[in-house]
Amino acid sequence: MQPNVTTLLSQIRQTKARNLFARDFLLTWEKELPDIERILLVAEALQLLRQDNISTRCYDSGLAVSIFRDQSTRTRFAFASAANLLGLEVSELDEEKSQVAHGETVRETANMISFMADFIGIRDDIYLGEGNAYMREVGAALDDGYEQGVLQQRPGLVNLQCDVDHPTQSLADLLHLKHTFGSLDALRGKKIAMSWAYSPSYGKPLSVPQGIIGLLTRFGMELVLAHPEGYDLLPEVAKLAEDNARQSGGSFALTHSMDDAFCDADIVYPKSWAPFRVMEQRTELLRQNDKAGLKELERQCLLQNARFKDWQCTRERMQRTRNGEALYMHCLPADISGVSCETGEVEAAVFEKYRIQTYKEASYKPYIIASMMMSMGFEDVAGVLEQLWQEGKARKFYPH
Amino acid sequence: MQPNVTTLLSQIRQTKARNLFARDFLLTWEKELPDIERILLVAEALQLLRQDNISTRCYDSGLAVSIFRDQSTRTRFAFASAANLLGLEVSELDEEKSQVAHGETVRETANMISFMADFIGIRDDIYLGEGNAYMREVGAALDDGYEQGVLQQRPGLVNLQCDVDHPTQSLADLLHLKHTFGSLDALRGKKIAMSWAYSPSYGKPLSVPQGIIGLLTRFGMELVLAHPEGYDLLPEVAKLAEDNARQSGGSFALTHSMDDAFCDADIVYPKSWAPFRVMEQRTELLRQNDKAGLKELERQCLLQNARFKDWQCTRERMQRTRNGEALYMHCLPADISGVSCETGEVEAAVFEKYRIQTYKEASYKPYIIASMMMSMGFEDVAGVLEQLWQEGKARKFYPH
Amino acid sequence: MQPNVTTLLSQIRQTKARNLFARDFLLTWEKELPDIERILLVAEALQLLRQDNISTRCYDSGLAVSIFRDQSTRTRFAFASAANLLGLEVSELDEEKSQVAHGETVRETANMISFMADFIGIRDDIYLGEGNAYMREVGAALDDGYEQGVLQQRPGLVNLQCDVDHPTQSLADLLHLKHTFGSLDALRGKKIAMSWAYSPSYGKPLSVPQGIIGLLTRFGMELVLAHPEGYDLLPEVAKLAEDNARQSGGSFALTHSMDDAFCDADIVYPKSWAPFRVMEQRTELLRQNDKAGLKELERQCLLQNARFKDWQCTRERMQRTRNGEALYMHCLPADISGVSCETGEVEAAVFEKYRIQTYKEASYKPYIIASMMMSMGFEDVAGVLEQLWQEGKARKFYPH
Repeated sequence: MQPNVTTLLSQIRQTKARNLFARDFLLTWEKELPDIERILLVAEALQLLRQDNISTRCYDSGLAVSIFRDQSTRTRFAFASAANLLGLEVSELDEEKSQVAHGETVRETANMISFMADFIGIRDDIYLGEGNAYMREVGAALDDGYEQGVLQQRPGLVNLQCDVDHPTQSLADLLHLKHTFGSLDALRGKKIAMSWAYSPSYGKPLSVPQGIIGLLTRFGMELVLAHPEGYDLLPEVAKLAEDNARQSGGSFALTHSMDDAFCDADIVYPKSWAPFRVMEQRTELLRQNDKAGLKELERQCLLQNARFKDWQCTRERMQRTRNGEALYMHCLPADISGVSCETGEVEAAVFEKYRIQTYKEASYKPYIIASMMMSMGFEDVAGVLEQLWQEGKARKFYPH
Repeated sequence: MQPNVTTLLSQIRQTKARNLFARDFLLTWEKELPDIERILLVAEALQLLRQDNISTRCYDSGLAVSIFRDQSTRTRFAFASAANLLGLEVSELDEEKSQVAHGETVRETANMISFMADFIGIRDDIYLGEGNAYMREVGAALDDGYEQGVLQQRPGLVNLQCDVDHPTQSLADLLHLKHTFGSLDALRGKKIAMSWAYSPSYGKPLSVPQGIIGLLTRFGMELVLAHPEGYDLLPEVAKLAEDNARQSGGSFALTHSMDDAFCDADIVYPKSWAPFRVMEQRTELLRQNDKAGLKELERQCLLQNARFKDWQCTRERMQRTRNGEALYMHCLPADISGVSCETGEVEAAVFEKYRIQTYKEASYKPYIIASMMMSMGFEDVAGVLEQLWQEGKARKFYPH
Repeated sequence: MQPNVTTLLSQIRQTKARNLFARDFLLTWEKELPDIERILLVAEALQLLRQDNISTRCYDSGLAVSIFRDQSTRTRFAFASAANLLGLEVSELDEEKSQVAHGETVRETANMISFMADFIGIRDDIYLGEGNAYMREVGAALDDGYEQGVLQQRPGLVNLQCDVDHPTQSLADLLHLKHTFGSLDALRGKKIAMSWAYSPSYGKPLSVPQGIIGLLTRFGMELVLAHPEGYDLLPEVAKLAEDNARQSGGSFALTHSMDDAFCDADIVYPKSWAPFRVMEQRTELLRQNDKAGLKELERQCLLQNARFKDWQCTRERMQRTRNGEALYMHCLPADISGVSCETGEVEAAVFEKYRIQTYKEASYKPYIIASMMMSMGFEDVAGVLEQLWQEGKARKFYPH
């Protein structure tokens, strides 16, 4: 069932991707469908070559700079793995985490870290209205630096999660769905429930659900977004999902009932997030460094969350899905009831049943990131892959 | 006197190592003698090739992940050096140091960091009863992930020091002895004093003395373990040392007199450690996060230590050793009286005399770690080394 | 106007550099003019090769260790970039920042981190009288370790900024001047104002102005050092600048008027620093860990600084320079009035006019560091560069 390299290369050549090479990757909805398809295909090709012990180093030297403005283990390792796979060395910028830099500081720092950088991966999802804007500010500084001859090359930006989108996650999720259901076409008409779920923690970013509704509505799926009243996502992303669904021949619906969302679903994605209005207040309080205000907001928000403890992915609810066998998805780590917390997003028995599948879902992320970088770095990415394949240099030494 | 590459390759081929390839390296006593011998031989071959400016990169890409659950400079550099020598890039997991993770967190994290990892080095020596158990928990999670198709490869685990053993240290020590005395056979009948020594600090792990008595008793040595009453090591490791000695034709004895231990010794290894009963209490208090209790335990323990200030490696005591010229060993850094503390493990004059030798002892560690990884990664490790040698790619550019 | 590779290689061969290969790089004034010239030429060749997508990896494996005893973003990235360009992997020593280690600790640590290290870059500019001395202490330990057979190779030391000099900065500045004015010869007779400037912060190191006056006086320039009374640099460096100027046929003058310094200047370098007497007191107080004393010293020093708020690089002052068009230089980040602070070193309009030029000035630093390492590592550096050029291995994959 796994495609072979020849097939993949031919498919990559057929995708008319026009927005990857020499562009940044900040939002999936800035890319056309062939761009998205190519990202998946190149990721699959990279995975296949690695599996065959073929080195995919296409850089003999060069840096992949990472800027993490909040804590991260999974994404840091995914980025490091992707960079290493292509022959780039990670160099991490250790900014003062609490401080939102602007203006000259951003402009200057962007250039100072980029003299030998081929890519910069940025994660900035704490401040609503800030993360994506920051990435664009960095991008403009790099354009300027490159045009003015400060930089020999214009490093490509990879959004490793912002306040608006989480493209490396949603594309890894999409590749997982492609492999699970056999093809992107097979997703047409499938019902997916992107549902809020209870968590005892607070302030989880909106980028995962936003990324999911912004991307999966483009493949003719029946997407149902479910959350308690007051837990809205960014209105412009919801609007975009609606438009996507209309154009792709799918649907996008909102419900305030988790049960309704799960009904006959082929796929469920139960995950907690904070309401965007709370995130807005939080951003304001963080900006003012109002610690008392932040504490009070957290208290209120946790109280409000607690009213929705029944928004949990239980075995009973899973019974409502198609044949009781919907695919459970999560970006990890999940809040598992009785395991990582008393009551959380998902019952232990449900999580355990799908645990290995969520790990596989996560396993695509390094390849998705490597694919993004390779597709941004090389116009004829199929040509590069083909030559790497034919040269067949061993990743791990193989005595001959 | 240094063997040449041909001899080493032939010796490697003769060692019937059956427990290295595709296995973890967690305790030296889980390995058979030929395994141990091969680790030394491969380390020597790597050192020889590097000395001849021959690159030993056997990975074109790949990660060597490190997890340090306590502070470390020497071992971090040794691990980074070893990884680099083989062509692997280090990616460090920065866990919350104070938190003992278990269950789903370990299982999940182990997989999340391993998608492109060929090896994982773990150091976890703070909690008695925890470190080695944690490594095995990680190992089981990796087995599961590999079998279920989450991981393309099963990363090998390297114990970089746990509560029970410190194999990279004891094997570096053994290689130092092999070079100092000419061969492993030459160690037969040699008397070594593994002795407790006074230190003004507290809570030093037991893994170094345990690693020494667990390994060196296998080579027919006369091993004397010396410590004040109450400073026992883990009983099961002491038992193991006894059994080893019996089987190897050596001996294992316990004394509460440093003078007796030093008497006619060929080698002395004076080093401080905490009694395992104290380490047990400490683990309990750390688990309960009982700060007052920990403070009180430290106070008591330092008081108790202070009763044994005369357990010092002095010039006078060194006179009691064979011809007054025993080899002094230490894993570094030593507590040197009048240098790093008022009174410590060793007199300045003794340390100074053997300083360069302790540095050489330490210099084997990167090669031992690289040897472990190479022997775990390649079944025909001699074949790989031979081909690298014949290809003769320069590590440092050599114009021709 | 940019030289081609052939020309550069021939120029490199003509420079009789005698103090680079197998030496440390700690102070520019320990190097002869041909050494300095070669550093620039090799940096230019590396830049040219990279621009032509030719890999300059001359190490297949090896570590470039960095020791940063104070915060740094720019220099960390420049060092990481330089190491990567040559094929070396950075391994950072994370010392206790607050502690000045000496004696056995330095000696031992220097060896422990060097088993596979080809270079060690050190930044230590906090304690006057300490930084450069520390580097020499490390160097002596490495000599010892290498001679005694502990180390297979003697890692070369690169001064990444100390209390006395900042060679990677001053050489990047010199390369910027060479490119701006066309050649080193063209600098003869040019007037440069190295001027103190007001900053609301305190305790900025003296190494940048000292580096500038110690280096640029060697090229026949008319160097004017300007600062308020009491803001003296180290007397021995001022003395050296005087001697340099005399020998090179240039001049070195001191003034307490920023206006006088700017008068007809071809180049201005306005930058804040602390008086060396304050730095001496600060070192003493830091040593005694006298927090109250440090606070009081800072208060006094800021008060004193505030008396010289008019020491600012304004548009008006720039009008006094040659045709009102002097080249403005800065090591970045600058304290820009109304941007990064209320009143600072430079008016926003002046900085903005020269912003891109300061970025270019900074862009030479990775190449300067790489050039230092390559020139220290290879006697026939032109031969190595020529062979890399002829082999023409692509840095970034280029399908053929």
